[in-house]
Amino acid sequence: MTAPPHDDRPARAGRPLPDTQQGMRRRNLARVMHTVSAEGPLSRAAVASRIGLTRAAVSTLVDELIRSGLLEELGPERPGRVGRPGSALGVSAQGPAGIGAEVGVDHLAVCAVDLRGRVRSRVVRYGSNRGRSPEPVVEQLDGLVRQVVSEAESEGLWPAGLAVAVPGLVARDARTVVRAPNLDWHDADLGALLPADLPLTVDNEANFGALAELWLGDGTPRDFLHVSAEIGIGAAVVVDGRLLRGTRGFAGELGHVPVRPDGPECACGGRGCLEQYAGEKAVLRAAGVEPGEDRVGLLAGRATEGDEAVRRALSDAGRALGIALTGAVNLLDPESVVLGGALAGLAPWLLPSLRDELARRTAGPACPVSVSELGPQGPLLGAAHSVVRAVLDDPAVVAERA
Amino acid sequence: MTAPPHDDRPARAGRPLPDTQQGMRRRNLARVMHTVSAEGPLSRAAVASRIGLTRAAVSTLVDELIRSGLLEELGPERPGRVGRPGSALGVSAQGPAGIGAEVGVDHLAVCAVDLRGRVRSRVVRYGSNRGRSPEPVVEQLDGLVRQVVSEAESEGLWPAGLAVAVPGLVARDARTVVRAPNLDWHDADLGALLPADLPLTVDNEANFGALAELWLGDGTPRDFLHVSAEIGIGAAVVVDGRLLRGTRGFAGELGHVPVRPDGPECACGGRGCLEQYAGEKAVLRAAGVEPGEDRVGLLAGRATEGDEAVRRALSDAGRALGIALTGAVNLLDPESVVLGGALAGLAPWLLPSLRDELARRTAGPACPVSVSELGPQGPLLGAAHSVVRAVLDDPAVVAERA
Repeated sequence: MTAPPHDDRPARAGRPLPDTQQGMRRRNLARVMHTVSAEGPLSRAAVASRIGLTRAAVSTLVDELIRSGLLEELGPERPGRVGRPGSALGVSAQGPAGIGAEVGVDHLAVCAVDLRGRVRSRVVRYGSNRGRSPEPVVEQLDGLVRQVVSEAESEGLWPAGLAVAVPGLVARDARTVVRAPNLDWHDADLGALLPADLPLTVDNEANFGALAELWLGDGTPRDFLHVSAEIGIGAAVVVDGRLLRGTRGFAGELGHVPVRPDGPECACGGRGCLEQYAGEKAVLRAAGVEPGEDRVGLLAGRATEGDEAVRRALSDAGRALGIALTGAVNLLDPESVVLGGALAGLAPWLLPSLRDELARRTAGPACPVSVSELGPQGPLLGAAHSVVRAVLDDPAVVAERA
Repeated sequence: MTAPPHDDRPARAGRPLPDTQQGMRRRNLARVMHTVSAEGPLSRAAVASRIGLTRAAVSTLVDELIRSGLLEELGPERPGRVGRPGSALGVSAQGPAGIGAEVGVDHLAVCAVDLRGRVRSRVVRYGSNRGRSPEPVVEQLDGLVRQVVSEAESEGLWPAGLAVAVPGLVARDARTVVRAPNLDWHDADLGALLPADLPLTVDNEANFGALAELWLGDGTPRDFLHVSAEIGIGAAVVVDGRLLRGTRGFAGELGHVPVRPDGPECACGGRGCLEQYAGEKAVLRAAGVEPGEDRVGLLAGRATEGDEAVRRALSDAGRALGIALTGAVNLLDPESVVLGGALAGLAPWLLPSLRDELARRTAGPACPVSVSELGPQGPLLGAAHSVVRAVLDDPAVVAERA
């Protein structure tokens, strides 16, 4: 019997924070909020039975959430139920709101979403941001944020936080845009450029698009790969309902997966990356279409009319996507792949060759590929909903600020 | 202001189990075990200060763990410390043991690891299992398990569970080998073939290898990609200290990532998969080496002697690995890549071209690649330690069985 070299080293352990009564109270507040949000209107008794706490414990939690303006009494439950009628509880339509913002290459957008998930205010400004430095763009965005916040306040809401979607890589500090090639931004600290009056989260548009799909999509599984495109191709990996971010926050760079290792040079330093075959620039070139304002609409229009060059370009792009996705599916074994963003609008012409590649390269049944119904709305909605989710996940923090 | 179609749908929520006093006690037992395991010997007071509970609460937990044989008193702390001397606590060397087993293509192995992480018994039987049906292989393995358990028991240990590493895809039931091409096994339910007296977990060898690296490796980060090979090429993705398993349990199939999409046909149905360039069969063929008993040793020996064909074959394999890993690193953004299993023994000849490809194809600094010190020991140790970790993670379950 020979012992290998590592025998006497004890297994290392992460040491989480201790369970305290205070932590338990915070988690139970979150459970009440999530239950009423997902299944309300509900009576206190119904909440208690769903989360497995006593009626008395739930009442105390509910009172605190009503005082903070996160829940509201909707009046007596409708008759016909068994037992003494209770008052139905709903998530407040007048409480905190999530402010979502999006810096697109061709537009800026801001919206406010209430705790019930409804968009209560929304503005969009079209105009290219390509090559503009971060300062004036962020200043303009802040103007739109003020406008949306003021509209939301006039309806009795108050902003619980601001989340900004950007077309680039964001550091794990959730403030700094490390690289946004299509804006030509490098190491732009949006936290320093925006007023500090709202809690801020900055994230990649593909990440927010995937979260929107997870939270709002119809039947989205908890393990999926979300592929989207504005100008570049991005992806987001969702595992067990959580976004896989990567060590630096850069996970999901599907656009630079090598598809043909000896193919054309890419700005990333590689060769034959997916973007060289399925990126917007490559597709427009292959289709013989001049870059203009509404490029997705233009490509979709020409493909619908039967333009052979456009159809071939999109089919080839679908094939390249299928090759890159075969690798991703082999690595991650997701339940499905969802095409979002600009890709959703081009899906009819991308999907046949994409699915064909995936099926040809898979021994068993191929991973199903579906198309997002949110399409280009995903990143903005995902941003706003991320603030709403943060309130549901830890209502105690908001209650203290209310 | 136009509201998108999904506005009125509330965000969906998973409803976790409620926090109860009983759940809190179980988690706190785990915290005590992990703390003593990672930092012991420690006094009760030291444990209390490290996990943020009162001395009294910790004493109650410790008493329970001593009664169940999971902790032991090591006698008075060494003098020279401030304050009243306490009795030092250590993880028991006589309590439960994790039994790890490995079904290799060319061998069977079983070991017992105690709660301190020491291998206390180990047996290996060489001989090909290729083409043998599951029944006789599992019967032979069970004989080795009985032998190791009996040796462990003679040292005062008792088996807390059995974990089996196999070279194939394992279903999420952690019992069924769905496909092990190099054994020619399909849908083999090992749970039905092994006696039911020990709690059983079956997993892919690459997964157990990665877990061994996480738990026992020197400075292994909590986000990494572990690449290993016996006959096929497997990988395992560790994210924030947890294995990414995939929907069906099949995540980590790096061997079937397309490297050259028009390359040679692969048994998986694809073309130009990584295994066609870096798999054992492909490398032996390119090197002009006959498949024999100790193939890794043979290749390493020839490469050391300066055999040009072998060196070129390994360098080409490294290049293919580099291309496939570029895609994986772009998708996952891991902190590092670790080469384990048979690849560790061939690293001197694989690494230069592998690192070169990764660097050429990466804009910023390339993801660091290191070599496992556990090498081919990884899967067996990972299996045994997974049982030990399960005891540390939920000592209450074992305490009830003790």
